[in-house]
Parts: sequence; C-alpha cells; structure tokens
Amino acid sequence: MIVVMKPKCKESEVAQVVNSIRQAGLKEHVSAGVEHTIIGIVGHTFPELRDSLELLPGVAEVILVSKPYKLSSREFHPVDTIVQVGDITIGGEEIVVMAGPCAVESEEQLLSTARTVKAAGATILRGGAFKPSTSPYHFRGLGEEGLKLLALAREETGMPIITEVLSVRDVELVAKYADILQIGARNMQNFTLLEEAGKTGKPVMLKRGLAATIEEWLLAADYILGQRNKQLILCERGIRTFETHTRNTMDISAIPIVEKVSHLPIIADPSHGTGKWYLVAPLARAAVASGADGLMIEVHPNPDKALKDGAQSLNFSNFQQLMSQLPPMAATIGRRLAIPFR
Amino acid sequence: MIVVMKPKCKESEVAQVVNSIRQAGLKEHVSAGVEHTIIGIVGHTFPELRDSLELLPGVAEVILVSKPYKLSSREFHPVDTIVQVGDITIGGEEIVVMAGPCAVESEEQLLSTARTVKAAGATILRGGAFKPSTSPYHFRGLGEEGLKLLALAREETGMPIITEVLSVRDVELVAKYADILQIGARNMQNFTLLEEAGKTGKPVMLKRGLAATIEEWLLAADYILGQRNKQLILCERGIRTFETHTRNTMDISAIPIVEKVSHLPIIADPSHGTGKWYLVAPLARAAVASGADGLMIEVHPNPDKALKDGAQSLNFSNFQQLMSQLPPMAATIGRRLAIPFR
Amino acid sequence: MIVVMKPKCKESEVAQVVNSIRQAGLKEHVSAGVEHTIIGIVGHTFPELRDSLELLPGVAEVILVSKPYKLSSREFHPVDTIVQVGDITIGGEEIVVMAGPCAVESEEQLLSTARTVKAAGATILRGGAFKPSTSPYHFRGLGEEGLKLLALAREETGMPIITEVLSVRDVELVAKYADILQIGARNMQNFTLLEEAGKTGKPVMLKRGLAATIEEWLLAADYILGQRNKQLILCERGIRTFETHTRNTMDISAIPIVEKVSHLPIIADPSHGTGKWYLVAPLARAAVASGADGLMIEVHPNPDKALKDGAQSLNFSNFQQLMSQLPPMAATIGRRLAIPFR
Amino acid sequence: MIVVMKPKCKESEVAQVVNSIRQAGLKEHVSAGVEHTIIGIVGHTFPELRDSLELLPGVAEVILVSKPYKLSSREFHPVDTIVQVGDITIGGEEIVVMAGPCAVESEEQLLSTARTVKAAGATILRGGAFKPSTSPYHFRGLGEEGLKLLALAREETGMPIITEVLSVRDVELVAKYADILQIGARNMQNFTLLEEAGKTGKPVMLKRGLAATIEEWLLAADYILGQRNKQLILCERGIRTFETHTRNTMDISAIPIVEKVSHLPIIADPSHGTGKWYLVAPLARAAVASGADGLMIEVHPNPDKALKDGAQSLNFSNFQQLMSQLPPMAATIGRRLAIPFR
Repeated sequence: MIVVMKPKCKESEVAQVVNSIRQAGLKEHVSAGVEHTIIGIVGHTFPELRDSLELLPGVAEVILVSKPYKLSSREFHPVDTIVQVGDITIGGEEIVVMAGPCAVESEEQLLSTARTVKAAGATILRGGAFKPSTSPYHFRGLGEEGLKLLALAREETGMPIITEVLSVRDVELVAKYADILQIGARNMQNFTLLEEAGKTGKPVMLKRGLAATIEEWLLAADYILGQRNKQLILCERGIRTFETHTRNTMDISAIPIVEKVSHLPIIADPSHGTGKWYLVAPLARAAVASGADGLMIEVHPNPDKALKDGAQSLNFSNFQQLMSQLPPMAATIGRRLAIPFR
Repeated sequence: MIVVMKPKCKESEVAQVVNSIRQAGLKEHVSAGVEHTIIGIVGHTFPELRDSLELLPGVAEVILVSKPYKLSSREFHPVDTIVQVGDITIGGEEIVVMAGPCAVESEEQLLSTARTVKAAGATILRGGAFKPSTSPYHFRGLGEEGLKLLALAREETGMPIITEVLSVRDVELVAKYADILQIGARNMQNFTLLEEAGKTGKPVMLKRGLAATIEEWLLAADYILGQRNKQLILCERGIRTFETHTRNTMDISAIPIVEKVSHLPIIADPSHGTGKWYLVAPLARAAVASGADGLMIEVHPNPDKALKDGAQSLNFSNFQQLMSQLPPMAATIGRRLAIPFR
Repeated sequence: MIVVMKPKCKESEVAQVVNSIRQAGLKEHVSAGVEHTIIGIVGHTFPELRDSLELLPGVAEVILVSKPYKLSSREFHPVDTIVQVGDITIGGEEIVVMAGPCAVESEEQLLSTARTVKAAGATILRGGAFKPSTSPYHFRGLGEEGLKLLALAREETGMPIITEVLSVRDVELVAKYADILQIGARNMQNFTLLEEAGKTGKPVMLKRGLAATIEEWLLAADYILGQRNKQLILCERGIRTFETHTRNTMDISAIPIVEKVSHLPIIADPSHGTGKWYLVAPLARAAVASGADGLMIEVHPNPDKALKDGAQSLNFSNFQQLMSQLPPMAATIGRRLAIPFR
Repeated sequence: MIVVMKPKCKESEVAQVVNSIRQAGLKEHVSAGVEHTIIGIVGHTFPELRDSLELLPGVAEVILVSKPYKLSSREFHPVDTIVQVGDITIGGEEIVVMAGPCAVESEEQLLSTARTVKAAGATILRGGAFKPSTSPYHFRGLGEEGLKLLALAREETGMPIITEVLSVRDVELVAKYADILQIGARNMQNFTLLEEAGKTGKPVMLKRGLAATIEEWLLAADYILGQRNKQLILCERGIRTFETHTRNTMDISAIPIVEKVSHLPIIADPSHGTGKWYLVAPLARAAVASGADGLMIEVHPNPDKALKDGAQSLNFSNFQQLMSQLPPMAATIGRRLAIPFR
C-alpha cells in the first residue's frame, strides 16, 4: 500500500499518516518527490486501512499494490489447476465441450439432445432444472423433475452433467444429482451461495457477472476456494455494454488474462455471451483460438419451440457443423478436443 | 407483439408466421408496407412466442409492445403507493431520510450515531448486520449481534430500522428485528431471496443492481409484489460505467423515470452511488431536487476508523450540514422533510 | 511515478529499472516491502517513461501519481475562473441559462424562441447552424444562413449567442458571428479543432464526450487553455451507458467533481443528457442543486414540428414553468439566477 | 415505422396520428389489439417524422423498422465488397496483415520494422505521422516528415502504406502519400473529415469509435460511401467498458455481425483493442477465427523505447511468432494469408 500526499502538504500531515501506519503495527518508508511525498507501507496491510488513511488531511490517494485476490492467483498457485470430472479433465491440454439445452423440458427433448451432442463430440451434458429468469412471468425450470431427467441422460450416455444451483436452499438437492455445480452470472456475488457450493466438495463452475471486473470475479472465486474446494472452473459469458446488437458483449480478452493471472481453467459460453445463434460458432472458434479450456453451448432439437432462450440455441445440424471445425482449430494452438470416454 | 418480415420475404414465409400465431391461439393482422410486411399479433401474447417467431424463415425482428413488468407499472396501479413504516410514510408528500453507519460495529458506535442522526432530522435508522463484501478478506458484519444492537437503538430512539438481508437462510431472522428489509444491489436478481423477502409481509427496499436497466429492476420488483406484498420501496444507488473517478455513476434520471412509469416510491443512496463522502451532499441535494421520496445516507462517528466504507461516510458535522440544506430544497418543489415522531 | 516490482523479482531487475530511471535524468528511491519492492521516481517524469518501464523484466506495474492534466487543474490555478460574455459572467455566483432551439430553422422560429426564453429569464441564446448528425440522411443545419439569423436575434434581443463549430474549416466563419464557440461531444477529441477554437480568443464551451472520463475531458480542456485562451466553460451532457430508457446517462456527480479538481466553470445540458423532454426539468433542477454554474436547454415553439431533436425540446410553456422553479432552487444553495441586462 | 398507442387511448388521438401521417404524404394501417392500438405507416418515411409523432398525445412509442444505414448495408449491396490496394485485395479469400510502428519515429526505426514485418508475411505497412493524443503533453507525430519516411519505406519494400489523417486540413497532404487513409476511433463522427476523406477516391479504413454502436459505425460509413467512394474497410479496435484490466474491450462479435449486415470488409486491431502486448497474439488469433478479413498490428524494434504506445507493441520476435500461427488458423476456416507480391 502506498500513500500519496497532496502537493505542498504539511509536515504535520505526513507525521499523522506515519503515526496511523505505526499504530496499525506496520512500518513506513517516506520518500519526498518534487511534487509529491510518497509513503510506502511495509508489512501485511489490510483493506480497511486504505479507507481510513484516505480520510486523513493531506492525503491525495492511497494505492493498492498487491492484487486483492489470493487463492485464485497464479502467484499463490503457479501451476495450472486441472479439474477432474469422471474421466474428463478440464484445464489441461484437452478442450472440453459442454452442450445441451438451456432448460430441461422433457425426457425426449433432453435425451435426443444428449445423444446428438455426444455423437458430435461433446463430453459434458448441460441442462437447467432451476432457471433464473429476469421476468417472473417466464418459464423457471422443472426443478427436481429436471434433475432426475439429467440423471437419466447421464445413465444412458455416460456423460457427466452440469446444472445451475440458484439458491442456498437447493445446494444439497442439486449436489445430489450434478457432477458440476454451476453458479450463474446473476449469483456471482451471492456470497452465501458461493460458500455453500464450495462446501459440497463438488466441482463448481463460476460464471462471470454481467458487470464484474476480472478482479471481482477472482475475489468471488476466492470465496469458493476458501472452502478448501480446489475444483473450480471459470466461465466467461459476456459483459454488459452499450452495444444493443448482442445480448451481451463477450470479453474474449478475459480468456488470456485469466490464463495469465490465475491458475484456474476458463471456458467460454458464446450462447449467453451473444444471445444470437448465428454468432455462436464464430465466437466459439474465437474463444478456442484465444486459449479457452472449453466451451459451453446451448443446443435444442427445435430452437423455435424452446421454452427458454431459443434464439441463442443451435439446432443439431448447426452444432454438428461447429464441432467439425473445432479439432483443426485446437490443433493450430497445440491442443486437442477431449474425447468422450464411453 | 409485432413481427417484422425481411424485405422481399416470400408469401409462404408470411403464411408460416401466421400459422404459428394461430396455433398459439392468437390472431394476426397483416400489413404489407413498401419495404416490410408487418404482422401485428392480437391477443395475450407470452414471452416464449417471441423467440420462436424470431427463428422462423423470413422474419427480421419481433418487437415487444407491452412493457414486460406489470405489478410495478403505473398502468396496473395508477395511484402512488405509500409505504407505511410505524408513523412514517414513504412515497407521499414527505421526504424521508434514512441514516446510520454502513455496518453496525459496536453499541457505542451505533447509539451515538442513532442519536445524532435523529437529532439532525433523520427518521429511519440504517445499519448493516450482514454485509456483502466483494472480498472474502473484508469485514462481513456482526450478524445477529448486530441485529440486536439495532433493536436496542430503536428502543432508545424510537426510530424504525432498515437492514440488509443477504440470504434466504437469514430472512426469518432478519425479519424478526427489522422494520424494513433491504435487498442489496448484488442480490437484485437473487429471485428466491426476492420472493422470500416478499412473503414476510414486511416493507422491503429493493436496490437497483449495478448493471440493471430500469426495466429489469421493475421486473425484480414484480417478484416481490407477486407475493401480495405491496410495501415496496425502490432505491437508486448508482450503476457501473466506464468512469473511474466515482465508485459508481448515480443515475439521477432514474428517479423521474420511475416516478413516471411506476407507482412505487423511490429513494436515493448517494453514499454508495458515489463512494466518496465529499460527493454525498451535492448528490443528495440533486436527488431531492429531481423528485426522490427519500435518501439513504451513511454516517459514522469516525469515518477514518470505520470497519467498512469509511471513505463514503459522512461524519456527524457533515451530516448535520447536509440536513440543514434539505428542508428549503424540498420546499422549492412543494415537499417537506418527514419529522421524527417522538 | 512509482514502479512496483513483481513479488520475488531479481536484484538485477531492480538494477535495470534504476538504470533506466537514471538514464532519463531522474533519481530513484528504492523501498523493499514484504511482498513488493517499490521504486519511487523523483524529478519531472514524462508519460513515455511509463510505457518503457512497464516493459522491463520484473516490473509489475507503473503507477502515475500526478494528475495528467495541468492547466485545467485547481492545483495550477486555485481560484475559480470566471468567463465574461458581454455583461454576463459564468462561473461566479450567478447561474446562467442558455436556451434556444436545437437547430436554427427559420427567422420566425428563432426570433419567437429568443423573445420567449429571454422573457422567461434566459441570458444566452443557443442555436445550431452547423449540426452534427449521426445519419447522413438527417437535417444538418442552415450553415452561414443560420449564423446570420442568430446575429439578427442577438441584434433584436441583446442576448449573446452560443453556437457549435463542427470543423476547423468553419472556425473563422463561426467565430465571426458567435459570442461563445461550442465544441460538441463528438468533437471532444478533435484536437486540431480544439486548438483552432482556442486560438480565436473567443470564449469556448467544451462538451464532454460520450465515452470520456473526467480526466480525458480535462486533458482536452488543456488543449484549448494551451492556446493562451482562459475563457473556457465545460458542459456535462450525459455519457453512454447500458441503460436504454434515456439517450444518455447524465453524470450529475461530474459537476461537484469538476468543481473540486478544476477551476473552470461547468454547466449542464439536460436536453441532450436525457433525450426526453419530460426529464429535462427534473435533471435541470438536479444540476443546479449539485452546484452547476448554468444550464443549456433546448426550446422550440412546436417540438412536434422540429427538424432536429424535437423529442428532447421543451415547448414555451414547459420552459417557463422550469424557469419559475430555478430562482428558489438557486437560493437554497446561496446562488441566484443571472438577470438579462437589457 | 410503427406507432404504438398508449393503452386506452382516445379515438381522437388515433385520428390525430392518422392525420399527421397523411399530411406527410404517407398511408396508415390501423390495427386495434387487446392492449394497444398499433398504426403501421406505409411509404417512405423520414427520420424527423418519428420525433414529431412521439410528441402527439396518446402515443406510447414510435418504432423504426428499417435499418437507418443504407449504402453500407447488405440489403443495398448483397455481394462482398473487395477493396483493391495495389496487388492486394481486402475482403476476399485472403487475410491481410497490416503491421508497423504506432508512430513513425525515424528512418532506421521505420525501415527496420518494415523489412521485418514484410519478411514475416505482412503485406501492408502501417505507421502514424499525425498522431491523436489524449494529452497535449505527449508525442504527436513527425507530420509530413513522417509521411516522407513512409513513402521511402514503400519505395524500398514495395508495401502499400496506411496512415491516419487527423484533420480536414491535412486530407490533401496525407492522400498525396498514403495508399489507404485511416480514420481513427476519435474521429469516427467527425463528419466533415469522413466526407473529405471519401472525396479523395483513395481507399479508406474507418475505425469504430470507442462508444459507437455497430449501427452508428455503419452510418458513419455511409458518409464516406456517399462520396461515391466504394473502397472502404472497417476496423474493430475495442470499445469502452467498465473493465480496467484492458485499455478497451475488443468486441469480437462485431466481426461476424458486420459480415452479416454489411458488404464491407472488416479487420481487427488487437493492439489498440487490448493495450497490452501479451494480449495481442491471442486476440489476433480470435479475430481470424471469427472471420476477420485482416489484422492491424503494432510492431516496434524496441517497444520499451517507443515514443508512443510501447506497451501494446510487439517486438520483432513476438510478431514473427504470431505470424507463424496465422496460416494454419486461416486454413481451418477455408482462408489463407495474403502473400507479399514482390
């Protein structure tokens, strides 16, 4: 932490800052520049110190030097984290495709989709049983009935399943069925939910919030990692900007940034990231080209009959076409698509 | 709902859209323009219809005509809602000031603040017992101990208390103590929490999410109103933009917009809205001048010693000065400050 | 400027940074912390130094301490700048209202508006002769014909006129007619135009760009002030955010911030800032309440017949009503409305 | 254009709207729904009509159906535009790499860079002689001296040159030297400059503004195309968002969107789009994978000594490494890198 004093501040003001630093059990290092006196703080600082120093007379600014996130940082854990889900690894050399319908609607819808995406090369089945909905008047999922259908699809196809948990109330129930617990964008800062999901010990996938900086996202990750759960995957799914042509703006740069500053695997969700089916394939390719460890893609047998998010779902044929483009794309950056085990 | 066909679409494509509309039990109204054929839909439409029509061949766009929010709209309830909290009304002629510390830290801190803000003209006491924190390494509140101190302060000063509920797990507990349940910005789309808070029947204050449009905010309000709880207050507290000088950008225009499109009272929180104590008074005045029904202001006896958000808290003297400016400001638009009852 | 080294950086890396600093003719001040070594730079740094130091091995971050803007800063010029336009002062105790049509359309339209706004208390006449237009298919102004009509209106009413200059090509022409040259939001970083407008010696009003931070806005101001022209007014007119209910989001907090960090007067334009006529009055009141030195308001005799921006223009009656609210509003913060001289 | 009336509007209000439509020489098509009466307008509407209809009593909203941009739309010109620059085509099967220093600094800097980028596979040389600078205290380019050096580099390497024109004042001068005129992001809505650049008949590259929607960008393109200049290239270079880790957020989805709605070629500039050299390669790959017709990359022999934007420039070795990744990447989507002619 560095305290920058205002130009022409008084010596007594510097003394007061120094005093506050020492009272907090830390040491100071004063450096008088041409314009500004700067006071470096030596020792383990804590966040409240910043606010209190900023309010002292003569202080222009207090600058944080260390990154605020810890457990998710590459400094803390230099080696890539590889999450294991059954026979599949996420975060290693292989690129994993999670695919399936936005919401589980019926046995036939789910099973036909599961078989198709598996045949096309997907290795994890996605499907929502508890759906967040901006409007209370929209479809909100089948609940436990949906979870049972997901389990049935896993039984038949052998694919592990990922599904969203919306509330602390449902963590236990969802964890009973899911192989990976998904925390959605709207819940990225639902801290109780993060902790409870972490405590299950199951792999968790944490989506980035619509208005979350990468730093805030990694702080949210620290809430989960702090429960001694290292099985964490991040998922970029678009941020909110002024552009109205897309539902969100996919921040593709977040992929190489996370790779640089964190040890956690990161996948991309171009279905929510764009909100339009015809943008899913180009953005999926872009995500892989920039280094994503996987993709999450919404697929529906009849997007025009979907109960939720049909506009962003690929039909079977478009999904198969996308899957055919991924292996050569992965190869150009020295990676390969994960292969379904069974 | 209006379907806009692509220029030079085929007749068979129009027929398919018409067919889909009729299958949904609705009627169509086809109008062929110079460039576009437009199909109006007559009858009670439902949201999934939009997605499915947009995927049909020849369709350029499907436009929603009705506002998606209902219970919170002025069309649904043309008269202003007035929320009653003890002897205080929110949403009528009087402007209500809620003030107190960001987080409850100790009996002395809370009681000295409560007495001071009451003496200066505040009518409701705010204070956080459960605090959301971006970082897991920051202070997160005293929990039930904090709620008990709030009850004590109410006992002594007679001020009703407003405090945040962070999780469905805590709704019952918080409702036992609080006069108004606060839903924070990060939880604006925590739909389970909205419903559970609504079910308590207690007055609820719903803060706008950092990245929420006004439309999404009112849809979130519908989740609470849908629990047959009409005691709802909205609170503008800044949105996320590219500007870094402030913590958030207060969207003052949201105040007159909400007044126009909704019957719900709206108050402003310039402490979180700006993140800097020296901006609180000018933005508080601006909010009142633009028609806000109240203010929520953070006050701390020693902001430089605060465990949370000291940088945006007013000290006693600055709060008193702000309070002295409000009555004449309110008078210029034909309103008056609420007067503490006891 | 402060160089923050990465945790566990090598001594040779610190030495290389120190070497670069000395080669630039500056001195260093090394401070080894628990996690980071920090190197303060003493002397007059220059911006390119930051980029070059950030690329050296072992460097985590280079932090700027001084504000990048100079001539517009309050440090440089602690006393408020007061701009003089004829008998009117902007930036002193008085609040100035600039009003008139978005675009000059005809003699009758302009003169009837000028008479009305003057009678209602406006002191400066606004009107566009050269209009920027997002679309090439929209009305773009009457050009010099419009300037002549503005001069005629000044002749008749005695009101000084403010009008936009769009291009360096027109600076001389516009300066021949205008009392204040307006630089629009889209041109805030048209640096040649800033300099040429500054060179005329005429008062200039610089609108904030849609995506400009306050810091960038003040740097743009420095371009004008650097031409030895101190007659500069800033104008907040809304920034671009995700909210679609308004055309832009007015950043009311920019008003007290500019007052704190700069000596320049600042006025607010709620017509462009909101894009909707029914939001103009509440936001105008908010701007005055937060400390604005003036307002710029679009007024049109028949907004529904306006050739440009009718949706955000007040008609005569709504303008008169707004003007009646401003004097008491100004009085509550110890100011008064400027009074037309003649 | 569609007029949506308020629920329960009066018949006289509908009649007034119909009357206004007929007065404008157009026909109406009234359709009474359950909640709303909707009035379709048949005939060639004009933008001012929207504003005037929105102000009529009983009108809830006026919706534009046609896209506002015309010349740049795929409806207007269904076939891909291919821009010809010497022997190089932009917008066809080949992917073109434009590379070179941000600013031309010296003969040696420019020539060594030109030779290196050509040898690595770039086909067009970029370099700034007139540089826009947020701060008046930064390097602003060598001016005509820089243009002469660019011409010298073209002479030696045979590479066509692209360079920015900042002001209408310099259009003639820059056009004398440049093969492609670049319009920078800050000037995207400098409409006089767009028209003057268009009039030269030279190929123009138009960068997207920091806060520009895709629709506004294509309207700006229409200004250039309106000068009977069809040689236009678009360039995505990042938009302004709340994320601070990058200088801008590259909107990769803009690439497939532009490909869908416009016939113009689109290239990507990951140097400005990210502002950090280590993000340039992953984002360059992402742009190609999503369908970009080319890349613009900043390269400098010694980024740590660059007078401008060193932090985002690749050194020779990093550029060569990136170039080696592009041919296989292009091959996966059925394209190939353009090959230098001589």
